[in-house]
Parts: sequence; C-alpha cells; structure tokens
Amino acid sequence: MGRISDAREKILDAAHELIELRGYSGLGVAEICKAADVPKGSFYYFFESKEALALAVIDEHWAGEHGDWKRILHSDAEPLQRLRRLFAETEAGQLAGQQSCGTVSGCLFGNLTLELSNQTEPIRLRLQKIFEDQVDMVEQVVTEAQQRGEVSVADAHEAARSVVAQLEGQVMFAKLYNSPQRLETLWHNCLSLLGARVPQAALPAG
Amino acid sequence: MGRISDAREKILDAAHELIELRGYSGLGVAEICKAADVPKGSFYYFFESKEALALAVIDEHWAGEHGDWKRILHSDAEPLQRLRRLFAETEAGQLAGQQSCGTVSGCLFGNLTLELSNQTEPIRLRLQKIFEDQVDMVEQVVTEAQQRGEVSVADAHEAARSVVAQLEGQVMFAKLYNSPQRLETLWHNCLSLLGARVPQAALPAG
Repeated sequence: MGRISDAREKILDAAHELIELRGYSGLGVAEICKAADVPKGSFYYFFESKEALALAVIDEHWAGEHGDWKRILHSDAEPLQRLRRLFAETEAGQLAGQQSCGTVSGCLFGNLTLELSNQTEPIRLRLQKIFEDQVDMVEQVVTEAQQRGEVSVADAHEAARSVVAQLEGQVMFAKLYNSPQRLETLWHNCLSLLGARVPQAALPAG
Repeated sequence: MGRISDAREKILDAAHELIELRGYSGLGVAEICKAADVPKGSFYYFFESKEALALAVIDEHWAGEHGDWKRILHSDAEPLQRLRRLFAETEAGQLAGQQSCGTVSGCLFGNLTLELSNQTEPIRLRLQKIFEDQVDMVEQVVTEAQQRGEVSVADAHEAARSVVAQLEGQVMFAKLYNSPQRLETLWHNCLSLLGARVPQAALPAG
C-alpha cells in the first residue's frame, strides 16, 4: 500500500475513533489530522468536506457491521436463535469497546442519528438506508419464524422495526449507565415484542 | 422581572432551542449569546461554564416534561390508558415541534445521552436521574396494571425500562425519518412488551 492510501486510511481510522468517542459536531479537521498524524493540507485531497468524511466513516462502519449481521442473521440456526445471537454479539461488542476505551460508546448510527439527522440531509439519507437494511434483515428472520408458527405478529416489517428500536433504546441505556449488561434484557423483550410462542426456557442457549 | 433575570432567561431559552436543533458540542458561547441578544460578557455572570448551562437547560426541560408525565401517569384513568395517553402526547409534542421548526427534534434527553453521556460525568449523572424518574413513573403504572391482572410481567421495573427504551428508540426513528407518525406504533408495542391481557380492540380510545 502506497503512502497516499495510507493517509486516507489513517484519516478514516482517526475520525472513526474520534466520532465514536465524542460525536461529530465538536470535531475539527485539524484535530482529526493531528490524531491521524497526517499533514492538515492532505485532508481535502481525500475528502471534500468534513461531511464527506463522516459519510465515509459511516460507510466503513456499516461495511463491517453489515458483514456481522449477515453472518448471524443468514446462518443456518433457528430463526429466533439468530436474533438471540445478534443481541449477544451486540452486547459483547459494547463490552469490548468499554474494555478498550473505558466507556460504552453505543451505536455509531444511533449516535449520529440523534446528533445529526435533522441537520444534514446526506447523512440523514445514509442513516435511513442503513436502518432500513437492518430492519429488512430482521424482518426476513421474523418472517421465517412466523412461517414456523413461532411468533405472532400482524406486520413483520413493523415488528422488525420495533425490535431494532428496542435494540437502539437499550444501547442508549447501556451507554448512559456505561453498562453493556443492560443489553441482557434484549432477548426477552424481543420475544415479547414478537409475541413468541416458544417459551424462553425451552430454547437452547444462543 | 428585572434586567438581570431577563438575561439569564434569554440565555437559557436560546440555548434550549439551539441544543434541541443542533446538539451541544458544536455550539459556542458567543453564538448562544448572539441568539439570546445579550452581551457575551454577561454569560459567565450567570453560568460558570457551557456545561453548567447545559445542566440548567436539562433541568428546565425536565421540570416541564416531568409535570406533563405526572399529570398523565398519575391521573385517574385506567393504568394502561395512561400509558396510551403518554404516547399520544409524545407524538403530538413531536408533531408540534416539527410544525414550528420544520424538523422532528426528538427527545432532548436521548439526544444528549448519545451525544454526551460518555464525555461529561455531571451530565451523565443528571440524565441517569431523569431516566430513572421516568422508569419509576412508568413502573408505578405497570404495577397498578399488574394488580388488576391486565399485564403479565416478571419484573415491573425491567418492564418499565423496556417501555421507555422502546419510546426512545421509536423517537429516534421519528427524528431520522422526520415523521412523528412513527410513534403510532408505541401503544401496540407497549402492550406486547407488557404481555397485556387486555385485547387492544377492547380498550377505549386514549
């Protein structure tokens, strides 16, 4: 890898870390370049604006997380067990983040939604697309569970959106209390939201 | 009211509006004073820091919202109907905000939790206290519904937290899609989360 792409990656990585820890609005280009250890002049060679950088950070983060969600939600496990696995890995991810930087940083997409979605239209649209992808992936699993008679929902898409909303709300509490363990409740709440017919105790560990 | 308290109120009001629209981190004291139409020098007469101002904005906002929550959740209506009313008024509040400033601004406490709770300890603690108050108030209603045999929850406090998490997650979507109507789903989801035994159709309009 040459020096040019190194510098772009360094800026992206530094911005990613800073945005996760402190949000977007309070960051300056100079600070990002300093953290990335690249000359400030090179920033605009790679990104036409701070907003363009934020979009690149969002895309990069979703590329990784989307891979995780696909691996989990498209697996051969029973549908509800896939959701259980998603919650367990989300909790493990927040715990790993807490252990590496001392504080639960929450969901990058949720953070940026509340910080920015009513301020910049390109970021709003990008975040809408990501949450739609997430809801679609959960919906597919809910539909499979429905076909097996394991859940009782009137509208699989709405139900999937509620599961993702519950995830975001509980991740917010995990961040507020700096406690990934807050996410332990997700599985039980998901079963309630989906009107799951499978008793929780009868399900094998996820 | 003398000029001094006028200036404090003006700073608070301007900061409240700016924080609702754009968050906290990107705001400067000079900008707040300009919006408040007070000399910049007067800011530190009333607030020792921008953080102190944020805490005052949070307290003022909760003073108003707490009054609304008490009026709704401590009313004589049947317990589940009180929750329904809370969701309906939350939706109406987001709609009124959208009509006055063109965009759904979401929940001030949720916004600041995701923006700031892992950065400043005083703000984290204040927001924790507010969400604990909210959960306690919902828990009281859930317990009443439980005593009437209308819901089936293992732990009323955990259930109340899930209802508030669902509220925050759906308000996040309302902000993301600039659509207060996203909150229509709250009532049905609340019944699911609480394992409500009362069929939705049998309940009178809230």
